[in-house]
Amino acid sequence: VTRTAALVPAAGRGERLGPGAPKALRELGGAPLLVHAVRALAAATAVDLVVVAAPAGSTAEVAALLAGEPAAPRPAAPVRVVAGGETRQASVAAALAAVDDDVDVVLVHDAARPLAPSALADAVVAAVRAGHPAVVPGLPVVDTVKRVDGTGRVLATVPRADLRAVQTPQGFRADVLRRAHAAAAASPGAPATDDAGLVEALGLPVHVVPGHEEALKVTRPLDLVLAAALLARRAGAGPA
Amino acid sequence: VTRTAALVPAAGRGERLGPGAPKALRELGGAPLLVHAVRALAAATAVDLVVVAAPAGSTAEVAALLAGEPAAPRPAAPVRVVAGGETRQASVAAALAAVDDDVDVVLVHDAARPLAPSALADAVVAAVRAGHPAVVPGLPVVDTVKRVDGTGRVLATVPRADLRAVQTPQGFRADVLRRAHAAAAASPGAPATDDAGLVEALGLPVHVVPGHEEALKVTRPLDLVLAAALLARRAGAGPA
Repeated sequence: VTRTAALVPAAGRGERLGPGAPKALRELGGAPLLVHAVRALAAATAVDLVVVAAPAGSTAEVAALLAGEPAAPRPAAPVRVVAGGETRQASVAAALAAVDDDVDVVLVHDAARPLAPSALADAVVAAVRAGHPAVVPGLPVVDTVKRVDGTGRVLATVPRADLRAVQTPQGFRADVLRRAHAAAAASPGAPATDDAGLVEALGLPVHVVPGHEEALKVTRPLDLVLAAALLARRAGAGPA
Repeated sequence: VTRTAALVPAAGRGERLGPGAPKALRELGGAPLLVHAVRALAAATAVDLVVVAAPAGSTAEVAALLAGEPAAPRPAAPVRVVAGGETRQASVAAALAAVDDDVDVVLVHDAARPLAPSALADAVVAAVRAGHPAVVPGLPVVDTVKRVDGTGRVLATVPRADLRAVQTPQGFRADVLRRAHAAAAASPGAPATDDAGLVEALGLPVHVVPGHEEALKVTRPLDLVLAAALLARRAGAGPA
């Protein structure tokens, strides 16, 4: 039975990485970021189906890219590719519309977090199945954080002990994520920066579980250097 | 004339990196973190003197470690080593007490940020000399940040457009930093996480200038992997 689906919005451009391929298709260690991300989700014990939202004109290409994936260490979950939307939120909604009715838990994962371990997806799903309607992985904030005004003057140092830098995959009861997206679509405003934010807007509780350092987001060119070093370390050939 | 001094508190333990050498003496690419940090400061055009606060029993060893540094590309600024204190704040105060009276601008830099470029030190000094009494480098926060309660429940997503993750070197008018440290020493409370916080506590303005991605803080074992990758990239032999 298909009970847990992982959604991957991958229709965005990622301008901060500079001109070139769409962000999800940037290469890391010989494979696009999206392939790394989907491979880890499909290998997670808790994931039964992966749905990728690709750029509307590129669904066949993206499906071909993902088709050749090896099914080790266990038969990997099947991958479906659908057309995404104009925004990240629209792409998640499109992927959500493509999951079967018997799916009761949904993960949403950034293609730009290629090295999030399968075990992180499993831990998030477990926390949802333990009773939390919405779960996000998060790490403590290690840098001192200050709030500034428009001129660059510091207004305050932000207490950071209770801050968490949140990552993906985020996990949801399927009905909760559907309600959150329906409500967001009905009230156009500033888009939330993550799916949990849409659930918070409904007034429902969101729970944080420990994140993983390797689930970093590849946003800037520097991040690709860091991700490559981590990938090399996994292969037992780290630069250190 | 010696007009700008850079202070490096390096007397801490750095437990988060695991057992072993004090944090500042961890190796990165064949040299301790502290050596990298001091080398970059001493090479900065704007820096005339570097003062390192070492563990009280290790000043001679630390001085020997720093003595062999090459003086390229320009004659590097001289380096002094003094005994640090029990806390980071006490070590900064000890280093500050060791600078000459004609020093009018002071930088404070973490030994744990080994790859902060010399140009970042120069930019911070320039902003102080342009009239800001206190200057910190800062980067936008790219992750979604949430505030949690003691049970891990999300209280709110923190608006991040006006947040900056601040780095070092931080720069100060020498008289301002002296006043800030004197006030902090006189009012024992929760220690500030950075020197700019002490200036904020005086009610004086702190200005943020653009930080640098390579000025990352080496806090966890993972950070050493990342720093090694950056160092390899600088050497033209990156792992990507």
